[in-house]
Amino acid sequence: MNGDNHNNLYWHAPSITVHDRRRQSACRSCVLWFTGLSASGKSTLANALSKEFHALGVKSYVLDGDNVRHGLNKDLGFSHEDRKENIRRIGEVAKLFVDAGLIIMTAFISPYREDRDNVRALLHDGEFVEVYLKCSLETCERRDPKGIYRKAKAGQIKEFTGISAPYEEPVKPELTIETDKMTTEECLKSIFDFLVEKGYLGAELFSQEA
Amino acid sequence: MNGDNHNNLYWHAPSITVHDRRRQSACRSCVLWFTGLSASGKSTLANALSKEFHALGVKSYVLDGDNVRHGLNKDLGFSHEDRKENIRRIGEVAKLFVDAGLIIMTAFISPYREDRDNVRALLHDGEFVEVYLKCSLETCERRDPKGIYRKAKAGQIKEFTGISAPYEEPVKPELTIETDKMTTEECLKSIFDFLVEKGYLGAELFSQEA
Repeated sequence: MNGDNHNNLYWHAPSITVHDRRRQSACRSCVLWFTGLSASGKSTLANALSKEFHALGVKSYVLDGDNVRHGLNKDLGFSHEDRKENIRRIGEVAKLFVDAGLIIMTAFISPYREDRDNVRALLHDGEFVEVYLKCSLETCERRDPKGIYRKAKAGQIKEFTGISAPYEEPVKPELTIETDKMTTEECLKSIFDFLVEKGYLGAELFSQEA
Repeated sequence: MNGDNHNNLYWHAPSITVHDRRRQSACRSCVLWFTGLSASGKSTLANALSKEFHALGVKSYVLDGDNVRHGLNKDLGFSHEDRKENIRRIGEVAKLFVDAGLIIMTAFISPYREDRDNVRALLHDGEFVEVYLKCSLETCERRDPKGIYRKAKAGQIKEFTGISAPYEEPVKPELTIETDKMTTEECLKSIFDFLVEKGYLGAELFSQEA
């Protein structure tokens, strides 16, 4: 910091860039965009990863219904237009976190391909990692941790993805995890291996865990 | 991580909390909400602080017109209602960053007391630090780095804060910095001293700089 004249506050020190922040964060920041049916494991895997990242000193954060629908997007309902705007805003917020140097994970059903592709288009190459949590509807219905499939089948919830509204599978996701065929541990390992292989996490970081 | 049955993905490990994240970030995360006239020094001070924080290993990020108005809030115009919504969304995003454990700085004129108070109400006690950059209109007009005061006075910009729209001074800001009476270095030192004194930054961190 050098002194300057107070009539000339527009002193422009070179700003900290996303590259500086990534170096400090020990990761190449990106969005891990989890998509899949309700109960396919999005929040569970995102939160478990968050814990692993934390242990490695990698800054991350999870955006989910709890912290977005009751806050930033509390003015939005469930019309087609509002759902679209919901995903758009989440994408824009995710972009800010990527710029801040974090690995940001989003845990939303995000059933429409177009909405997900719009988010992809907001980001630079390699910053959007679409993680499709593939899980049969039967398994999701059996898990049904919040009892919402039961309600949807009873007609108490309208336009429920998988029951009365479509889920459009990703065409070319960066990663597909079959959560009905693997243990949570195996799912996490697959995602970690991908992140290390693609250079989002340094191999040396990962080996600290061994 | 323990193995589990793949039909029971709802394995809930204790989640990482804001307290864990703060411990790792070497700071007590908060919003530094800069408010003041155009050219009062908001972006300049926020970006200079960001550089200092980075050097200390403290994670921070700046929200400003560049990364918000063209992204998250690009659907908003400049009507009273849209300006209100602009500040509301910025407040909600800032809250997410605080939860993620960062010091988040916002650099918006934010001329209305009510809008700023609404953001304060979103956050927990001590998380909202209102930093009023007090600077005479004359000095701001003289600085006028983007030539906007000239345009406003020529009537080319309507409802321009300080010229044709009001700026409501904070009643009890956490910090008032008179940017027309201090050098940039002095302004930065005042903010740093405040953050250390109030425990947002550890004194031991600050002393590393000496």
